Amino acid sequence: MRANAVDARMHIRPAMELDARRKTLRLISNGMYVLTSRCGDHYGAATVTWLSQASFKPPLLMAAVRTSSNVFRCMTESRTAAVHILGCDQKEVAQKFFFPTKTVAGEINGEPFIDGATGVPVLQNTPAHIECRLVRVVNDLGDHAIVVLEVIEAECRMPVRPLTVAESPWEYGG
Amino acid sequence: MRANAVDARMHIRPAMELDARRKTLRLISNGMYVLTSRCGDHYGAATVTWLSQASFKPPLLMAAVRTSSNVFRCMTESRTAAVHILGCDQKEVAQKFFFPTKTVAGEINGEPFIDGATGVPVLQNTPAHIECRLVRVVNDLGDHAIVVLEVIEAECRMPVRPLTVAESPWEYGG
Repeated sequence: MRANAVDARMHIRPAMELDARRKTLRLISNGMYVLTSRCGDHYGAATVTWLSQASFKPPLLMAAVRTSSNVFRCMTESRTAAVHILGCDQKEVAQKFFFPTKTVAGEINGEPFIDGATGVPVLQNTPAHIECRLVRVVNDLGDHAIVVLEVIEAECRMPVRPLTVAESPWEYGG
Repeated sequence: MRANAVDARMHIRPAMELDARRKTLRLISNGMYVLTSRCGDHYGAATVTWLSQASFKPPLLMAAVRTSSNVFRCMTESRTAAVHILGCDQKEVAQKFFFPTKTVAGEINGEPFIDGATGVPVLQNTPAHIECRLVRVVNDLGDHAIVVLEVIEAECRMPVRPLTVAESPWEYGG
């Protein structure tokens, strides 16, 4: 069960020369989000960066998620997930979800949550979140599955400058 | 042929109150890219923002693209496309590709290009680009098609801070 384990590529920037492809792909701009899901008593939560909107009508998101993760297993079973926006001062929250999911009384990886409208765990310390229904999984092309999520509920509790990979100590891409 | 026409939602930020969903979805962080393709004598080029990496091995990108655009038509025919990274000082290049594609002797929408290794138009004034092979189109879910692109060639000609939607005068999302 090394699901959600720290990924070797989610690390402090190395001083070494990066090859052309890695250097170029790391110029793609991404935010940092916490993705959560639940199926029955099983919880999954992971920091993800490869995520974007994909449609206005209906409102869709697309994300690339490791298939070995708890969050992927939970969302493919329950067909629901929540995307949490992190504020630019919440690097330590992002970091908590590099590690395997541990749930104890009302907390996932030390972060308090409640059940959202769709039953997904909604983290309480993030400024905004989006509850979603899983509508498609593309899992035959690469080392991550592409999941397409339809937006069901969205809440922005406070105005915020979102945390981006570029402003974080980490990189994920290449 | 209103392909690539200026989209009503790619506009200067309005002062009006945004609803909760729009406000939340606009907290998703995106870069700004120019996507180009060509099938025979037909060229397509458009500024896109809904784009992310989707796999390390093989290296894949995913992008959400309007199906009415010339670039979508060209890439589904030729199965090739190029993603161009824009520098943070290249808003005027992004803006050129809000408009329908016009190609004259060596220029698309006023920007010089050459043929890349895969035959796609490679813009000469952008700091980095990625030539890709189209490997999947998901076109039955929303008002954009999700295209999955395999990275064939990547070149970074100069170090650059990439242009992001957050730092631009525009928004695209909600």
